[in-house]
Amino acid sequence: MTIAQTRGKRGKMVNGFDPATAADLAPRTRDAIERRARLLGPAYRLFYADPVEVVRGRGVFLYDAQGNEYLDAYNNVVSVGHCNPHVNAAVAAQMDTLCTHTRYIQDGILDFAETLLGTFEDDIGHAMFTCTGSEANDLALRMAKYHTGAEGIVVTAEAYHGNSELTSGFSPSMGENSRLGTWVRRVPAPDTYRVDAADLGAWLAERVSAQIHDLRRRGQGIAAFVADSLFSSDGVFAHDPAMLAPVVEVVRAAGGVFVADEVQCGFARTGSHMWGYQRHGVVPDIVTMGKPMGNGYPVAGIAVRPEIAAAFGHDMRYFNTFGGNTVAMAAARATLEVIQGENLQANSARVGGVLKDGLTAVAARHERIGDVRGAGLYLGVEMVSDPETKTPDSAAALALVNEMRRRRVLISATGPYANVLKIRPQLIFGEDHADRFLTAFEAALDTVLR
Amino acid sequence: MTIAQTRGKRGKMVNGFDPATAADLAPRTRDAIERRARLLGPAYRLFYADPVEVVRGRGVFLYDAQGNEYLDAYNNVVSVGHCNPHVNAAVAAQMDTLCTHTRYIQDGILDFAETLLGTFEDDIGHAMFTCTGSEANDLALRMAKYHTGAEGIVVTAEAYHGNSELTSGFSPSMGENSRLGTWVRRVPAPDTYRVDAADLGAWLAERVSAQIHDLRRRGQGIAAFVADSLFSSDGVFAHDPAMLAPVVEVVRAAGGVFVADEVQCGFARTGSHMWGYQRHGVVPDIVTMGKPMGNGYPVAGIAVRPEIAAAFGHDMRYFNTFGGNTVAMAAARATLEVIQGENLQANSARVGGVLKDGLTAVAARHERIGDVRGAGLYLGVEMVSDPETKTPDSAAALALVNEMRRRRVLISATGPYANVLKIRPQLIFGEDHADRFLTAFEAALDTVLR
Repeated sequence: MTIAQTRGKRGKMVNGFDPATAADLAPRTRDAIERRARLLGPAYRLFYADPVEVVRGRGVFLYDAQGNEYLDAYNNVVSVGHCNPHVNAAVAAQMDTLCTHTRYIQDGILDFAETLLGTFEDDIGHAMFTCTGSEANDLALRMAKYHTGAEGIVVTAEAYHGNSELTSGFSPSMGENSRLGTWVRRVPAPDTYRVDAADLGAWLAERVSAQIHDLRRRGQGIAAFVADSLFSSDGVFAHDPAMLAPVVEVVRAAGGVFVADEVQCGFARTGSHMWGYQRHGVVPDIVTMGKPMGNGYPVAGIAVRPEIAAAFGHDMRYFNTFGGNTVAMAAARATLEVIQGENLQANSARVGGVLKDGLTAVAARHERIGDVRGAGLYLGVEMVSDPETKTPDSAAALALVNEMRRRRVLISATGPYANVLKIRPQLIFGEDHADRFLTAFEAALDTVLR
Repeated sequence: MTIAQTRGKRGKMVNGFDPATAADLAPRTRDAIERRARLLGPAYRLFYADPVEVVRGRGVFLYDAQGNEYLDAYNNVVSVGHCNPHVNAAVAAQMDTLCTHTRYIQDGILDFAETLLGTFEDDIGHAMFTCTGSEANDLALRMAKYHTGAEGIVVTAEAYHGNSELTSGFSPSMGENSRLGTWVRRVPAPDTYRVDAADLGAWLAERVSAQIHDLRRRGQGIAAFVADSLFSSDGVFAHDPAMLAPVVEVVRAAGGVFVADEVQCGFARTGSHMWGYQRHGVVPDIVTMGKPMGNGYPVAGIAVRPEIAAAFGHDMRYFNTFGGNTVAMAAARATLEVIQGENLQANSARVGGVLKDGLTAVAARHERIGDVRGAGLYLGVEMVSDPETKTPDSAAALALVNEMRRRRVLISATGPYANVLKIRPQLIFGEDHADRFLTAFEAALDTVLR
């Protein structure tokens, strides 16, 4: 496809509602969709062929305007549960006491920074706060570029790292119309379902090395290799956790830094560790975090080795009006208290295991489920039209997503072909919820794949 | 100064605390400062020579750990007052009901978008939501660039528009070490205290036109002219509200768009209008907003003419995990309800007038106050060492800021020479607060300028 053909083509969106099909929907839904288009414009996308109107949430459940209950196996932001009472009480109490910024002395930000930094290796000594994961990645890369004096960034083929100009510039999953930076190079994702490499780490390191070489040939150099260690938007690859170490070695040898994007995989999501990169036995130069950090309250940030932050922090400054504000810190502290106090990392490992085992058992009876993978409560189920050729089947995946929605279980899809079911419930998901999920999933498979 | 000399120089920060002076402070303050440096690193800056530890806020007051009361004439984020009960109740109620994102149908975002768009001219038809003003400006410029196919951006000499890579690239007030984009051109601010032009609009339009010409010569073209119509970081210039119209005409004739950055001057701050640009009788192509939008809850956004958003929205998509979430919309709606319900725009005009008249009267007795200016409750007081030469006196301004802090009244300074006192209290500021402010200010002047 040429550039001219691409521009004007509707932007890519996995599991996005297509307005051309609105005529089939209930009048109330149609009205809301028309109103959205009029007021919010064309850049907003809804999920599902039949979009859901949600009015209430509690624990692992969402409820629509008619009072129907949906099992939420998708929303990882509210990782300690919709409307968590401990987090909400902490936010309300802080809002009634003080909400202000980081240019006054306040204990709250320091106490939380200390607790947060305690979850990282000792080399990672500073915490800085933003409002969104995009801002965290934007700040991390500004810092990496200032520290290295280079501008090149290497990411995986279908990476997503944010919505700002800089971060969308290294987020190829935004689709063909969203311009990649001339300073961006891509490597294939470590697709353990298809790549046949004896040593996946060496395989990836070799590809990263080639891209660094090309960046040097253009005088751009390597500022950073950025990766989500679950490769969520690439299709969820959680195997072979020794894989990143040789890649990081290559990047550092060339003068670049390793940025671990923990927006998806951090805060105990993978079950075995608090942070996704820790599965790989590496220590990043910068860690970025976001989504579940405040259980829905907008808070995000970075954790960084002091030597990486030194020049940037001294020569410039960083101020984010709401980032690290009093209430954001209260929300983040309360959320981390629940994760740690209720052993949700262990729960993620245990219930994630039950869910993965169940899906694997189902897959044994359905050859069009090509692969089941993931870690903790972040799972991917890859749909294919033929298990021999491993041909991606996005139609089957989307049909399953929509059939699950019809059965009031919320999931979505991911990957370059949108054929990988994305299952990432709240960390409080119980075994009973996993059973309910699996029952619905088997029924949906019978409906869709018959 | 050469680039080499600049790099390694501590980053510019108006009214920033200098850690080299920590030895003079109380032990508790010193400990907190040491802890901040250790945990948060060097990029964070505190206000004042003797930083304030705040623990509580209420209405127009902040309180420190010892229970001392400070009159807050600086924090424009909490524009309807610290810990506003109406906003806090709305946020708490929504947090206990639902907090989720824009890919489900929800009435809240549509109802608020409709109310918000009702405050703009009819041509501005869509609203989109982010978490911070930086994100709003980043999105606005991405959109302007996609719409125009050009990349050049023209701003005022000491503009501030955000902390992302893109927005810091057109924020010269970030200082010499913060890299400006090669696609950025600057024009002088409309400094009514110094510029002697019969027609300030023509004067500025001519300068913008010259920069657009230069951008064209480099093949970059003009994407946007971006301005805060109060020119806050340039030193607060509120005179001559007919000034922007000829500039916008020049920009549009060259194919660019006009982005009104309302983060500082929006939401009734100027007293005479809901939006700062409305003082100038122009209608922007994109309006960006932030700080006071949710009275401290992180919410920001843009309002845009549909034709500007059309291609960007269709060809790509925009998703911001927390932007426009259920609780953010409740906070923004409640804040706007207070602004409109309590006639705070009229209050800003009235009390801002009292404050400005009072400052003008004081200035008549102090020749080192060179100028008093502003609109509504956003005022600038320019300190000079000599009223004839109008030589900026940043030392006097900073001494006054610190003397006011000692007297427990919070303000700061701004402008390229950090010699303009920045006074922007909450919109609920009363005449009694203005009197208290003026009394403290006269006493501080006597102390500092004697």
